[in-house]
Amino acid sequence: MSVTNAADNLATLIRCPSVTPAEGGALVALEAMLAPLGFAVERVTASEAGTPDIENLYARLGSDGPHLMFAGHTDVVPVGDEAAWTHPPFAAEIAGGEMFGRGAVDMKGGIACFVAALARYVEKHGAPKGSVSFLITGDEEGPAINGTVKLLEWAAERGERWDACLVGEPTNPDHLGDMIKIGRRGSISGFVTVHGVQGHAAYPHLADNPLRAVATMATALMHPPLDTGTENFPPTNLEVTTIDTGNRATNVIPARARFDFNVRFNDLWTAESLQDELVRRLDAAAADQTLRPGRAPIRYEITWSERPSHVFLTRNDALISSLSGAVEAVTGKVPALSTTGGTSDARFIKDYCPVVEFGLVGQTMHMVDERVALADLETLTTIYETFIERWFQHAAS
Amino acid sequence: MSVTNAADNLATLIRCPSVTPAEGGALVALEAMLAPLGFAVERVTASEAGTPDIENLYARLGSDGPHLMFAGHTDVVPVGDEAAWTHPPFAAEIAGGEMFGRGAVDMKGGIACFVAALARYVEKHGAPKGSVSFLITGDEEGPAINGTVKLLEWAAERGERWDACLVGEPTNPDHLGDMIKIGRRGSISGFVTVHGVQGHAAYPHLADNPLRAVATMATALMHPPLDTGTENFPPTNLEVTTIDTGNRATNVIPARARFDFNVRFNDLWTAESLQDELVRRLDAAAADQTLRPGRAPIRYEITWSERPSHVFLTRNDALISSLSGAVEAVTGKVPALSTTGGTSDARFIKDYCPVVEFGLVGQTMHMVDERVALADLETLTTIYETFIERWFQHAAS
Repeated sequence: MSVTNAADNLATLIRCPSVTPAEGGALVALEAMLAPLGFAVERVTASEAGTPDIENLYARLGSDGPHLMFAGHTDVVPVGDEAAWTHPPFAAEIAGGEMFGRGAVDMKGGIACFVAALARYVEKHGAPKGSVSFLITGDEEGPAINGTVKLLEWAAERGERWDACLVGEPTNPDHLGDMIKIGRRGSISGFVTVHGVQGHAAYPHLADNPLRAVATMATALMHPPLDTGTENFPPTNLEVTTIDTGNRATNVIPARARFDFNVRFNDLWTAESLQDELVRRLDAAAADQTLRPGRAPIRYEITWSERPSHVFLTRNDALISSLSGAVEAVTGKVPALSTTGGTSDARFIKDYCPVVEFGLVGQTMHMVDERVALADLETLTTIYETFIERWFQHAAS
Repeated sequence: MSVTNAADNLATLIRCPSVTPAEGGALVALEAMLAPLGFAVERVTASEAGTPDIENLYARLGSDGPHLMFAGHTDVVPVGDEAAWTHPPFAAEIAGGEMFGRGAVDMKGGIACFVAALARYVEKHGAPKGSVSFLITGDEEGPAINGTVKLLEWAAERGERWDACLVGEPTNPDHLGDMIKIGRRGSISGFVTVHGVQGHAAYPHLADNPLRAVATMATALMHPPLDTGTENFPPTNLEVTTIDTGNRATNVIPARARFDFNVRFNDLWTAESLQDELVRRLDAAAADQTLRPGRAPIRYEITWSERPSHVFLTRNDALISSLSGAVEAVTGKVPALSTTGGTSDARFIKDYCPVVEFGLVGQTMHMVDERVALADLETLTTIYETFIERWFQHAAS
């Protein structure tokens, strides 16, 4: 079986219904593509109480350095309203030059292209002077507990060390070649409960309305802005994502109220320094007397998300220039080096080696009729092949 | 049967379990007290689709003017945790000089005292030169649809006209004689839905978080204060009583949020002028760019409570000076003439004749172990009797 055609590889993977956390045959199919190329393939099942067991895959070609890792996931999000799909979500049907299917761009397409690129490289050059490995999880779209984190720990314990990693997530907003991600903002969530004193709306002096404090505290978290951005990152942004009280009686002042917020923060902050600043703002707002004249500071409690995502920025020139140069050589475009968007598994990999992200165009990801242009599959395969060549050349020089 | 003893009258009424909307025998008992005094008693059942039928009572002694009305209710609020009561809530047990029972102060006690006061007056003076009537509803603690409003309409259609009304609600905060209510603030509630654009917390520019607008709108409603009060009224006060979103995902910006508020307003406002001012504030806040830089005004909808309570102030000197003078003569205290507190059925009666309110001490109303000092029952009966004397003297002069 030849795996130099990315579209064939992708059709095989789309036809495996690997809706997270199901393996769905996708890792079996990937193993069947990699083993003939000479990869030593390991299947790693990870478990943790209270979460589903997850199947993952680690495959390595070669035993020496330099060592390049390609990371990604075969699990996909649910199909949503299947009746609304123009083509069945697990059929890989082609129409108008596009292949339809869940995971087409996020991110079975990226895997399919990297497999094809590596196969072409080996056909032309033989095995790389060094190693290439695939670190593929089935738990990126789920809770991400039994996925990349555990697979990295498992591999590191076996002595695996990497010099660089490319994550194949769809990074391009509109066109292939738009954007490489060279870092990610951090993310942390806070959960606040404000304790007032219940009472009758006609006797507010006998009560203490927690919603007066909530309005002031929510405003203080959002304003003034936490920063105006840095050279490589957009401004830190905080969104209050819910405020809830559950009081149906308009003649009653509620006893308590709660709200949650999420912050995406740049490299001016650590999770710790950001928490300090936000608590300082909340304390000041809890004591503010504008909406609560003459009142003592209101009592509140805050808890934080257990696993904040830490901000990171990759500065490895061999990795970035090899990838950026490959994109420019193939597409004629100089890709933006960006740190925008949400979190990805790159936030775990960055603790082991420099990591960047580049893949397909993300516009249809998670949507009905997720699809990819066949031309994009071919272009991305060429970019990946060029990147592999340049990276090993750079490493050898 | 003699009804000159207020405690006996009250015990009879407490033993009727008239938890709203049940009549519970209370109106039957009241009729049995009033008929022997010469009252023509009418029982009036009011109905409206979607609400329980309510039994009410109207009784008149005499056929000429001047005409004094006593208004009140025999329905009571539920007992709450009956096991927590020191004495059963419908037993009228006496301990430590106090009678225990649901309705002891709110407001079977007031009715019991007025019946006793009138009986004593008739014993001393014979029937008043004019008329006295009781307008008693069983729907004050419920939705107040089939109660005082309909009973007033029913009586007015029969040609009933009144010169003054005393409502026997518990008006004294701490001690008998503290406070007469000579008016009430208005009350209106607003229900707001704010429509944003849902999105991912990592891409806030693609979404429009309605909670940013909610924080600004809630603040704008509360600040600056609507006024600083008037000669007879405290400042208008607005409380946001609930904010709700129901979004559990901290990576999602919600599509919409809602909040309710209630305003208690003084005689600087009508319901209409207040609504205009609040909509003006909400419109300005919806367009405010402090928390939503560069954004167009957010879309919101507001609805208002169907039956706002209108503010009123009674200025009838015959009524107020007769009552205030009676309180001072009996207790030695000059009562405050107040407009504080919640709404009462006086807001309906004020459309027919001047109305004031004076009754027992309200501290235990709606609570477990609602109770009244026997001494207070006797004092209030003497105040009511003195008031009846003074009011008819004033009317005759």
